[in-house]
Amino acid sequence: MSDRSRIVQAKAGFRWTGTAVAAYKTETASHSDITRQTLLGDGPEKARSRSVLRYFEIEPGGHSSLERHLHEHIVVVLRGQGHVILGDRLEPIGLHDCVYVAPGTIHQFHATAAEPLGFLCLVDRLRDRPARPNPIEIDEMSRNPAIAKLLKT
Amino acid sequence: MSDRSRIVQAKAGFRWTGTAVAAYKTETASHSDITRQTLLGDGPEKARSRSVLRYFEIEPGGHSSLERHLHEHIVVVLRGQGHVILGDRLEPIGLHDCVYVAPGTIHQFHATAAEPLGFLCLVDRLRDRPARPNPIEIDEMSRNPAIAKLLKT
Repeated sequence: MSDRSRIVQAKAGFRWTGTAVAAYKTETASHSDITRQTLLGDGPEKARSRSVLRYFEIEPGGHSSLERHLHEHIVVVLRGQGHVILGDRLEPIGLHDCVYVAPGTIHQFHATAAEPLGFLCLVDRLRDRPARPNPIEIDEMSRNPAIAKLLKT
Repeated sequence: MSDRSRIVQAKAGFRWTGTAVAAYKTETASHSDITRQTLLGDGPEKARSRSVLRYFEIEPGGHSSLERHLHEHIVVVLRGQGHVILGDRLEPIGLHDCVYVAPGTIHQFHATAAEPLGFLCLVDRLRDRPARPNPIEIDEMSRNPAIAKLLKT
């Protein structure tokens, strides 16, 4: 082909052909039991694609980092159930629910059910680094008792 | 909330709360048996979101427009099976397969199985209009007999 259009085929068990299952992040320990697969945006199309599509999977009881950033997240749940902290709100999420994480919203995904929580997460390829909220922000969020109970800093 | 993060909840039957099932396009008749739901990017977040997440569903035997544009598509199949024409290639697609449609690639999705083909399609909010390929390009693509058989102009 003269361009870089391509298909990444799904395999059984929420795995994709030619895609490695990687640690979620290596630079921080503020997460637990989560893996990452980069599905599109990091292959031959890397030089020109604007977006990167990742699939994250969190084992029961695990969670993503508590963080915020200036780029947006577009999330679609593909597997299981859980909860997401979005600023001062705690919301349940399940199969095919879509989450828009706006620039600046502090967020954290939790696998609160008995099976893994798996979701697509679309981001810009060129994006800012996530930052951890400061203690004052964490105090404010923790005024919601449901968040206080689940939040992992 | 102080920002526009939000959740769009999935319902049964590949429908989402607060989301209308719309005609795929109104400006052209070059498609068949296809509906569109805009899941994210067209609600309260419209003013700031960079991306729009849509869900398209094609009835068995139906197809999307044959088109190309300068913006990229990121596609993930959520339901059924089918085929996609990507330039001079014809590829089968099925559940959770991911398709990167690069800028400029002529493409068309076909629901070639007995059940509907449903897929997420992520695009930039600010994007160019699709254009139809010219007759010379269609002739070139049609040198692939499998494409010639399926192609709908």
